[in-house]
Amino acid sequence: MSLLVVGTVALDTIETPFGKAERIVGGSATHFALASSFFNPDIRLVSVVGDDFPEYGMNQFKKKNINLEGLQIKQGEKSFFWAGKYHNDMNSRDTLDTQLNVLATFDPIVPENYRNEDFLMLGNLMPSLQKKVLDQMNKRPKLVMLDTMNFWMDSACDDLMDVLKQVDVLTINDEEARQLSKEYSIIKAAKKIMEMGPRYLIIKKGENGALLFHENQLFFAPALPLEEVFDPTGAGDSFAGGFIGYLSGTNDISFDNMKRAVIYGSAIASFCVEKFGIDRVSELTQKELDERVQEFVNLVQFDIDLMG
Amino acid sequence: MSLLVVGTVALDTIETPFGKAERIVGGSATHFALASSFFNPDIRLVSVVGDDFPEYGMNQFKKKNINLEGLQIKQGEKSFFWAGKYHNDMNSRDTLDTQLNVLATFDPIVPENYRNEDFLMLGNLMPSLQKKVLDQMNKRPKLVMLDTMNFWMDSACDDLMDVLKQVDVLTINDEEARQLSKEYSIIKAAKKIMEMGPRYLIIKKGENGALLFHENQLFFAPALPLEEVFDPTGAGDSFAGGFIGYLSGTNDISFDNMKRAVIYGSAIASFCVEKFGIDRVSELTQKELDERVQEFVNLVQFDIDLMG
Repeated sequence: MSLLVVGTVALDTIETPFGKAERIVGGSATHFALASSFFNPDIRLVSVVGDDFPEYGMNQFKKKNINLEGLQIKQGEKSFFWAGKYHNDMNSRDTLDTQLNVLATFDPIVPENYRNEDFLMLGNLMPSLQKKVLDQMNKRPKLVMLDTMNFWMDSACDDLMDVLKQVDVLTINDEEARQLSKEYSIIKAAKKIMEMGPRYLIIKKGENGALLFHENQLFFAPALPLEEVFDPTGAGDSFAGGFIGYLSGTNDISFDNMKRAVIYGSAIASFCVEKFGIDRVSELTQKELDERVQEFVNLVQFDIDLMG
Repeated sequence: MSLLVVGTVALDTIETPFGKAERIVGGSATHFALASSFFNPDIRLVSVVGDDFPEYGMNQFKKKNINLEGLQIKQGEKSFFWAGKYHNDMNSRDTLDTQLNVLATFDPIVPENYRNEDFLMLGNLMPSLQKKVLDQMNKRPKLVMLDTMNFWMDSACDDLMDVLKQVDVLTINDEEARQLSKEYSIIKAAKKIMEMGPRYLIIKKGENGALLFHENQLFFAPALPLEEVFDPTGAGDSFAGGFIGYLSGTNDISFDNMKRAVIYGSAIASFCVEKFGIDRVSELTQKELDERVQEFVNLVQFDIDLMG
């Protein structure tokens, strides 16, 4: 089952306590595509770049056989650019610069032969653009996953609520879940949010893992405790890409398979943070991924006979 | 295998967003004893109270067959008293009042027939008092577990480092682990702390669960996401009591059994926070505990066949 991913393809300048990288390849759709390509050989991308987008980024997409028919390349324009600096704890960061460039006028056009996809990942974009992608599909995909952020809750709440009605899986972080639901308790927040549309909800808690909610079911995956987090940029997008990549590659949206997808997503994210940008995931091997998943198994699995 | 628990037996006045409870029974040794009594019928307590300690507290201990020979009752004196108020997020609190009372002159005397215990839980007390308990034992216990806090790291660091050399399991929270090790990364912090003496380290992360470290092994248990946390007081002590209660009751200190002990400790802690003080754990049934452990199983267990 092919997977359509929509989001940003960007250039990032990132400063962490470990170093600085200038104008490297980033963006949500980039991380979705590279992460999901581990599990699904047929990834199709819709995004936009300027003519400054570097060759090595294109080569990475091509190396992973990612279909770029939906990637608009605007001659004479510049790619979306973000610059940020992480604090020492790596859990917070300051945005130093945001240049929308091609994103300011981005009109996501879904190529004709992408319009029957069964799996659709809508990255964090203006909710009206996310809706516009959905509206171009010939049929309702089997699974639609959406990522968003607090900025849209503040500035485009009605549009966001509108698109949420058409979504199966929503992924947000814990603070965003609280903001969206106006509930402090994560359990109460999740119940309220699932009434807004999404039947499945993933609440990301950064270094404290992620919770998957569906009806009365709940699954928790820890983040792997790492000795060093080098660059957290893209971890959430790699997680989401790994998650829907695995679901689409296995063509199984049962809750049990979603648990596995959360673990694979967490594993890919744990690699993403080891180097700047896409460097680590680009070179990742299947063997390394399997070993990392085994570490997750070791981390949480226990064997208990109830005493009662 | 009997278990000796040493710590405070206190009166607490607690204010949470859900209400206020005045001069209720609390203290670390109280929570250790009640939690561990689920798994071990032979719990022995060393602590001190004044003559103001209420009958219902004594009755709870007696109901659970906790041996009170080592509980000093100081006539004409008052019990250790603590008053605190939780903020709305329940993750932080202000101490409103601390009256050491009998604790100011507490001299922990281990009764002669407690001195051959195989399992010893040293609650958060002045490190020199923890050492004094250890020095009274006729033989080195099979497992010594110690809880401490940032206050002693600041005010009695040498004594703390001294007692840590004689400890098998240390339990502290993540901020304390960072302070003790001077490392931000929890993995690096754990390695450094295990070089200070403890072969096992439990780092508690509150609502984000707990990590168990031993050599190169690592186990993570989430806290159960709860709809409502009523009163977090004593959750950490209930966790520790459940942990060492389970280890001593099964007389098995293998790493696999420690994983189970972490889960049982987390389960008891998840009940502790549902009511004020000892109210919920006092009325807890084996059936409820088993059901709660099953919820932990459901929360984290997944079934994966590696793809490689």
